[in-house]
Amino acid sequence: MHIGFLGLGNMGGPMARNLLKAGHQLSVFDLSPAALASLVEAGAQQAASPAAVAQAGVEVIISMLPAAAHVRQVYLGEDGLLSRVPANVLLIDCSTIDPMTAREVAAAAASKGNPMLDAPVSGGTGGAAAGTLTFMVGGKEADFRQAEPILAAMGKNIVHCGDSGNGQVAKVANNLLLGISMIGAAEAMSLGVALGMDAKVLAGVINSSSGRCWSSEIYNPFPEVVENSPASRGYSGGFGADLMLKDLGLASEAAKQTRQPIILGAVAQQLYQAFSLQGNGALDFSAIIKLYRQEH
Amino acid sequence: MHIGFLGLGNMGGPMARNLLKAGHQLSVFDLSPAALASLVEAGAQQAASPAAVAQAGVEVIISMLPAAAHVRQVYLGEDGLLSRVPANVLLIDCSTIDPMTAREVAAAAASKGNPMLDAPVSGGTGGAAAGTLTFMVGGKEADFRQAEPILAAMGKNIVHCGDSGNGQVAKVANNLLLGISMIGAAEAMSLGVALGMDAKVLAGVINSSSGRCWSSEIYNPFPEVVENSPASRGYSGGFGADLMLKDLGLASEAAKQTRQPIILGAVAQQLYQAFSLQGNGALDFSAIIKLYRQEH
Amino acid sequence: MHIGFLGLGNMGGPMARNLLKAGHQLSVFDLSPAALASLVEAGAQQAASPAAVAQAGVEVIISMLPAAAHVRQVYLGEDGLLSRVPANVLLIDCSTIDPMTAREVAAAAASKGNPMLDAPVSGGTGGAAAGTLTFMVGGKEADFRQAEPILAAMGKNIVHCGDSGNGQVAKVANNLLLGISMIGAAEAMSLGVALGMDAKVLAGVINSSSGRCWSSEIYNPFPEVVENSPASRGYSGGFGADLMLKDLGLASEAAKQTRQPIILGAVAQQLYQAFSLQGNGALDFSAIIKLYRQEH
Amino acid sequence: MHIGFLGLGNMGGPMARNLLKAGHQLSVFDLSPAALASLVEAGAQQAASPAAVAQAGVEVIISMLPAAAHVRQVYLGEDGLLSRVPANVLLIDCSTIDPMTAREVAAAAASKGNPMLDAPVSGGTGGAAAGTLTFMVGGKEADFRQAEPILAAMGKNIVHCGDSGNGQVAKVANNLLLGISMIGAAEAMSLGVALGMDAKVLAGVINSSSGRCWSSEIYNPFPEVVENSPASRGYSGGFGADLMLKDLGLASEAAKQTRQPIILGAVAQQLYQAFSLQGNGALDFSAIIKLYRQEH
Repeated sequence: MHIGFLGLGNMGGPMARNLLKAGHQLSVFDLSPAALASLVEAGAQQAASPAAVAQAGVEVIISMLPAAAHVRQVYLGEDGLLSRVPANVLLIDCSTIDPMTAREVAAAAASKGNPMLDAPVSGGTGGAAAGTLTFMVGGKEADFRQAEPILAAMGKNIVHCGDSGNGQVAKVANNLLLGISMIGAAEAMSLGVALGMDAKVLAGVINSSSGRCWSSEIYNPFPEVVENSPASRGYSGGFGADLMLKDLGLASEAAKQTRQPIILGAVAQQLYQAFSLQGNGALDFSAIIKLYRQEH
Repeated sequence: MHIGFLGLGNMGGPMARNLLKAGHQLSVFDLSPAALASLVEAGAQQAASPAAVAQAGVEVIISMLPAAAHVRQVYLGEDGLLSRVPANVLLIDCSTIDPMTAREVAAAAASKGNPMLDAPVSGGTGGAAAGTLTFMVGGKEADFRQAEPILAAMGKNIVHCGDSGNGQVAKVANNLLLGISMIGAAEAMSLGVALGMDAKVLAGVINSSSGRCWSSEIYNPFPEVVENSPASRGYSGGFGADLMLKDLGLASEAAKQTRQPIILGAVAQQLYQAFSLQGNGALDFSAIIKLYRQEH
Repeated sequence: MHIGFLGLGNMGGPMARNLLKAGHQLSVFDLSPAALASLVEAGAQQAASPAAVAQAGVEVIISMLPAAAHVRQVYLGEDGLLSRVPANVLLIDCSTIDPMTAREVAAAAASKGNPMLDAPVSGGTGGAAAGTLTFMVGGKEADFRQAEPILAAMGKNIVHCGDSGNGQVAKVANNLLLGISMIGAAEAMSLGVALGMDAKVLAGVINSSSGRCWSSEIYNPFPEVVENSPASRGYSGGFGADLMLKDLGLASEAAKQTRQPIILGAVAQQLYQAFSLQGNGALDFSAIIKLYRQEH
Repeated sequence: MHIGFLGLGNMGGPMARNLLKAGHQLSVFDLSPAALASLVEAGAQQAASPAAVAQAGVEVIISMLPAAAHVRQVYLGEDGLLSRVPANVLLIDCSTIDPMTAREVAAAAASKGNPMLDAPVSGGTGGAAAGTLTFMVGGKEADFRQAEPILAAMGKNIVHCGDSGNGQVAKVANNLLLGISMIGAAEAMSLGVALGMDAKVLAGVINSSSGRCWSSEIYNPFPEVVENSPASRGYSGGFGADLMLKDLGLASEAAKQTRQPIILGAVAQQLYQAFSLQGNGALDFSAIIKLYRQEH
């Protein structure tokens, strides 16, 4: 299949590579010449602009952009995708943005005759490279069925979350809970150890009891509890604290727009903000446990 | 085996019954004549005081009391257990109290020649009746080995958490994380639904992703997501909000004593306190989601 | 002086009247025919659009609009003020909006040759009617000097806060602290009374000590402590909880944009959001004390 | 007058000196030989124990101790004050402790025929030396009248707060609000400056508006805003962060006992706990603003 791909950064680059590996033909664009060159070397065709991608004869266009402002510009801007793309080309935006913008852009696409899906991912750069991402997809059932085999070349868990925007809703809600439970795990582990308990034994009890969560079991923030976790290698790699901060910012923005309180979520956002201010934004988000432990 | 049992309330009563069913001989005491009479009818021998239990020729004494003050009084008080119990009788306190008091009482017992375990439980009155409690046990390995078959008559998950007090540490840490993740689940579910997503679909996505926790998966606070959960039957039964408030109070007390911060935990405690003030303390603790949803 | 006035709502209406009383000639616009008619009856000239106000031969234009989106549209929109207003006409925006938008609009005005000030107010509808508002003004010193006598017809405290946008900065920072200290006063008063102290005596001690703040002294949230306060008349009138919620939302938005944490501020925002969800948004913002007291 | 004085530390030492200066005769006790020697050199008579002070023929006994445990031991312990002091000797405890303990000790004193006042102070070591402390006094009106001239030798603001324990209630409520409003001032100042405003100008606007509080006006946490404030001398001197942490701990303990929520207060306590964990407990409590600002 001939696919357009916009945004070839840390996530988009490896995702596009996996599409090439699966045998698809790709027309790609990115503002960075280096990112473009790297994909061209891997077999993609270079396009000069988003509009050029739209007119390259593609059947599907996938975008992976940093934030809502970029999505607006690429799709709705003057000379943007929607002003040039032929009707019926399927649009799939994998960026993580607020549900309202996702719905607004999808509605604009629909009015031009283009089906559109929001399909944010989880799994990080590791999952992008390995082709094991989770896609949370919002949009019409039929469009989801069309997209599924394409997304399957980049991920192993493709979930239909309902109508337009719901992929973003699922991601923002999941990461809100993730941000809270990670800090909760950090507080519980730090307190238990301060009270004299062995960290591994404590994690074992919690993980077989009602405190169990992904953050305590798979990604425990205490060093040496889970082998190969970021906590066991100095909090390098993984999902950066500043990315969690961005997602908690999306959650609080969505909460404000729907007049919905998120009390622990707001505190979690601010703790990540304070942590980032202290220069820790590039560490894995489980490093937030440093707020709770004296440096040794 | 001849066992002494002190405290025959909502938890202690059914626990003692399960010991009788397992064929043990019981000498029991409680301040409530009704509670005593009920156990006597089931086959236990009545004792007139904790001291009388201590002198009834028992090999093991189990206590299940409401709070640290009661534990102090029963064990350390004038004419208390420790003043009367023969050396080598194994003492097992199943009350949920702060780790410091647990360690202090165990040290006093040791100085009189009595091994002692702290063994708080989780699983609620349902688990007590069904004999499926989890016991988190602190104390010496050999004493734990001796207690294990006795506790197995009352529970199905008996975990050794390390030295004296660590059963309490494990419980306080687990329930701290549980209180936080339950409120996190309430915020995430409420926000997702306010943003237009179906509650069951959202829970499904979260439970196959990184937001997954016991509170989202087994005990989801949103109505009609998990069959037979308290949320699906009007928040009756289950683990009362006021009990969660008590456990978060133990966590913040332990945090203060160890000079350890617990930021989300402190907010969680206060939200449960505010919820209780509004008259909701007897509801299941997942009802905290009511703070986040307009009444319908 | 001939002045244009845009936005004749609960605040703008009485402000415009005070300009008429001071002898100024007014050309006014509002989307509401009733609001327009009421000002015309008081002596103002009706204009058909913001553009018409811009071209009515005015020396100064004042706007008082609900939110940043309206300010953008009125000033920057197609056929908006900036596309029609003659150079050198002084623009004064009294709306409460985020500092970034204020600076962006002022920069656009400057590029068309129009000096512009941001001049948000405090003092509420009472202050607007009585002409006793406080104006916090951002912009050039010379422009501030020109505006001062005009603003003096509507307020009694006109403060120059520095360059463009700083009027909004001052308001958002002040109201952030106000929102926090009001909840702090609510917690301190509720706790002190729950511990057995008389509310008036407690307020007296606090107000002569280091806990003293505007919220404890002038606007105490406990009933019957300050005569004629909203708390002493059922929390009617005053500064609505939903307006405080809006201002705390501006603070958290500004904090996010500058990557600055505001931990207590974020909790305060969410408590007002939860309070609003319970149907209390129209009450005075000091009614937040209801979260801390059982209804009697 | 012949007065007994127990506890000659950083606060009690200078307070006792001021009583000597006012012409009173003093019998003093402290566990530290150095502290005792220093007072003896200043003219006091040394006693060998609290009981010895009680029997030295004094008319009044004043105590200034670190925490509730010490107050219990000195007054209620074996061979404690109450077991030896003659009836009618007036007891004045200036320690900052929880209201419940204060009331319990006062009730025990009353049953032995001794009037007792709780009289915690504010004003710090500077106020203790200068004799300008504020005393918040709980107890009977007649006893307050008797104590007033004595306390006037050590302070300039002597406030009767009502019945027994209410001095402690007033202090705990005041310092709860102080802790919250200091962090609020830190957040508002940091945000305003991050948004581009001059710190002094911002403080000026806030202090003439509704955000005004003691923490913004007298004790602003931003450097160089208030001359001679701790913030303007590197946060040395003043009221230590660990003392504020202790007082917020008393507030949360009192809140728990009365089942009263204190949401911002709990967050404030934990922020001070985290700040202390980072090694900052000896700095003035206004240094909490460091959590909000990058080190320069």
